[in-house]
Amino acid sequence: MPTPIKMAKNLTSRAEDYSKWYNELVYKADLAENSGVRGCMVIKPYGYAIWEMMQKELDRMFKETGHQNAYFPLFIPKSYFTKEASHVDGFAKECAVVTHYRLKVDENGEIVVDPDAKLEEELIVRPTSETIIWDTYRRWVQSYRDLPLLINQWANVVRWEMRTRLFLRTAEFLWQEGHTAHATQQEAIEEAEQMMNIYATFAESFMAVPVIKGLKSENERFAGALETYCIEAMMQDGKALQAGTSHFLGQNFAKAFDVKFADKEGKLDYVWATSWGVSTRLMGALIMTHSDDNGLVLPPNLAPDQVVIIPIYRNDEQYEQTVGRGKELMASLRQKGIRVKLDQRDTHKPGWKFNEYELKGVPVRIAIGPKDLENGTLEVARRDTLSKEIVSADQVVAHVAALLGDIQNKLFDAAQQMQTGYTSHAETYLAFKEIIKTKGGFVWAHWDGTPETEERIKNETKATIRCIPLEGPMEPGACMVTGKYSLRKVIFAKAY
Amino acid sequence: MPTPIKMAKNLTSRAEDYSKWYNELVYKADLAENSGVRGCMVIKPYGYAIWEMMQKELDRMFKETGHQNAYFPLFIPKSYFTKEASHVDGFAKECAVVTHYRLKVDENGEIVVDPDAKLEEELIVRPTSETIIWDTYRRWVQSYRDLPLLINQWANVVRWEMRTRLFLRTAEFLWQEGHTAHATQQEAIEEAEQMMNIYATFAESFMAVPVIKGLKSENERFAGALETYCIEAMMQDGKALQAGTSHFLGQNFAKAFDVKFADKEGKLDYVWATSWGVSTRLMGALIMTHSDDNGLVLPPNLAPDQVVIIPIYRNDEQYEQTVGRGKELMASLRQKGIRVKLDQRDTHKPGWKFNEYELKGVPVRIAIGPKDLENGTLEVARRDTLSKEIVSADQVVAHVAALLGDIQNKLFDAAQQMQTGYTSHAETYLAFKEIIKTKGGFVWAHWDGTPETEERIKNETKATIRCIPLEGPMEPGACMVTGKYSLRKVIFAKAY
Repeated sequence: MPTPIKMAKNLTSRAEDYSKWYNELVYKADLAENSGVRGCMVIKPYGYAIWEMMQKELDRMFKETGHQNAYFPLFIPKSYFTKEASHVDGFAKECAVVTHYRLKVDENGEIVVDPDAKLEEELIVRPTSETIIWDTYRRWVQSYRDLPLLINQWANVVRWEMRTRLFLRTAEFLWQEGHTAHATQQEAIEEAEQMMNIYATFAESFMAVPVIKGLKSENERFAGALETYCIEAMMQDGKALQAGTSHFLGQNFAKAFDVKFADKEGKLDYVWATSWGVSTRLMGALIMTHSDDNGLVLPPNLAPDQVVIIPIYRNDEQYEQTVGRGKELMASLRQKGIRVKLDQRDTHKPGWKFNEYELKGVPVRIAIGPKDLENGTLEVARRDTLSKEIVSADQVVAHVAALLGDIQNKLFDAAQQMQTGYTSHAETYLAFKEIIKTKGGFVWAHWDGTPETEERIKNETKATIRCIPLEGPMEPGACMVTGKYSLRKVIFAKAY
Repeated sequence: MPTPIKMAKNLTSRAEDYSKWYNELVYKADLAENSGVRGCMVIKPYGYAIWEMMQKELDRMFKETGHQNAYFPLFIPKSYFTKEASHVDGFAKECAVVTHYRLKVDENGEIVVDPDAKLEEELIVRPTSETIIWDTYRRWVQSYRDLPLLINQWANVVRWEMRTRLFLRTAEFLWQEGHTAHATQQEAIEEAEQMMNIYATFAESFMAVPVIKGLKSENERFAGALETYCIEAMMQDGKALQAGTSHFLGQNFAKAFDVKFADKEGKLDYVWATSWGVSTRLMGALIMTHSDDNGLVLPPNLAPDQVVIIPIYRNDEQYEQTVGRGKELMASLRQKGIRVKLDQRDTHKPGWKFNEYELKGVPVRIAIGPKDLENGTLEVARRDTLSKEIVSADQVVAHVAALLGDIQNKLFDAAQQMQTGYTSHAETYLAFKEIIKTKGGFVWAHWDGTPETEERIKNETKATIRCIPLEGPMEPGACMVTGKYSLRKVIFAKAY
């Protein structure tokens, strides 16, 4: 069997320039690219296939907990935003505004906006859908029998970001947004907590990304929420990434849109609300948690192809034999529910293919050469450690099945270790500033609970409160900045 | 067992007012409703669940034929539309135009569009994505090795329709759009034909809607296509509905966006293109083909719930017993892969439930009463014929499985019969006008092949050429209007 040609990935290394490494990886692994429209990305087939894997698992988890999908309009009349006072401050700002509904050809033969086709009221391309959905719920909810209303939407949304990065911050992105209505405050809080827990389970069990569950401080809370639950992940460069949020909205939107229900006694009250979402941003978290200088590293549970089989041959006869064996193996692996691809293209050399699947993060690569056919063996390589071993052909199916589980677990463990390594405690503001500046990562520190202190820390260090953690040390102390009472340490970090 | 209460559906009958019947059915069966945004609908959970069934099957068929999903931007710069001359006439007209990217609070505290945030170039909310996708393909295609490019997108699109109807014609709708690039003309034509055939198979095997395959005349062709393949369905009111189109685009978009490839000899040529799509309009076709004055009738292959089990009881003990039996039955049916729901809500009476599931078109309803428990029987009712029978409990699983297949077939047969009944041949223009005016339906007639004659017929009768059929009679004759030579009859109808 020829020695695989180790080709240069031409990826900038993480140590050299982390940000450049990320951009190159996203582009070269065929995940996404910038489009001709400022701030909007094209999600390429391979990137989209990973997103589809994410969607499938999340959708299953949503449905298993009683949620149904629906679809609400892309456009929101401008006036809807004014109905919930704090929401408008958060969202009626940088957004795409539709003002006209027709183009025409002018006297010079140019296509121009038809000034006669001006909308009476401008339409906003949804940055989030609370307003249009609660305007709808008013028609759907009359009595306690209509509750709870457990609805999710898969959709595109637009927020006019000035500085964009593929997957992490784009003007248009894809997401799911759940919007639920409940008869009691308690039930709505439980729903918001349940969805945070579902997001955490998804992140840890499928993305192999350990997360910290917590509450947002007032400054970081969703505009219109009473409480925002979140999951926070740590990236390899020591910056945090908010991976999902779940909001307890109280009765704010019900009051703004007049959504009342009659209880069993006929008494009217406003309903209680939640909303929760994750987006294509998760792709960024996935990439930045596991990948290395050779390219993407995918956890098997989300890999579109878990295994790739590559035949190695020097002539037509060997091609037939190795491809034939590859097809048998593919069938056997598929019977075990393993997602496997055989790359039998004659247009590309094995070395090129090895390189390609390493860049694309396929968890397991199996090479079949003429010697393997003779010896009844196969070469099995794992992407995470880049190690390989010779496996007996009759044991390969069981071996690969076990290997996929092992890779999934190892990736989680490595990410957990990375997160732990990036976790510090600061007892003084001086120490805090030093850690944020030099090492980064999550820093647990005492804070007096005021927006003013948080704002000052943000201005002086660029670190924000990622969350008030729901687990971990609970000792009271003194705020590192003001010395005032602090119930418990909260978690700071610089964040994406 | 109490006799089910036959409640009024309060649906206008089809005979009374077909259009009103349709609107009421869509609303009352919880499929969709109008939103607060002009022309945009809310797809309700039950309607969306049917759309998800459609998506799932179509997506599977696309992937089985080698297509991959991807995602392209919602917005298209205005200038992109000018690049393909015929495309601009078709699409750069009634569309949503984004002119600004920020709102602000003015001196009166009102939210207004910020005049300082005017876009240099307006963005159009995609009415279809050929232009933005071909602008991307320029970067993706260099050599024959990159071809064919077989890509599909599930997305929302916006066309500013003045007169809208739920599912049939809305400003925003959901669809899939396939966009493929090929090395040869022949391969692109084969792709366009393949996708028409896939749409036809989906319509007939899943929707139970018989369709006629054909080509569009020049007047009805997609703006920018050399040939448009289509599937045409006939509705119960004698109007046709275009259910899907597949376009052979020649090299038009490749030339407009400069997409060339090098063949094996290194010679450069423009690539060949197709695009193809079906939309939430299919929901309208599904509804109007099968439903009756009692509500929706769903083919089992697309029904979110194929079977609903309703316990009938007079007291708590009977509730426990009938619900217990229902759960067992549900488990047995699910083991056979049947989608089944047990409605054990104590807040609604059996009569109300019978009515509800009739309105929602659930194919099979099973009632379990105390007498059934005694006798070892169940009452099985089918939605299509509204007939019911007593079935022995130990045969019910096999019976229901067979029944679902039978309903699927019978619905197709009935729709085929309806279509046949609505098919006429006209030898003279006088006869043609009479048929269009009185009976409607598909009318086969000779036409001289000119846009002028088609236009005249349209102006005088409101009928258009639905397609030049690919199957059926092929005899030449004389145009019914001009007497000029006609290669073969084409199919006219008034259409949605």
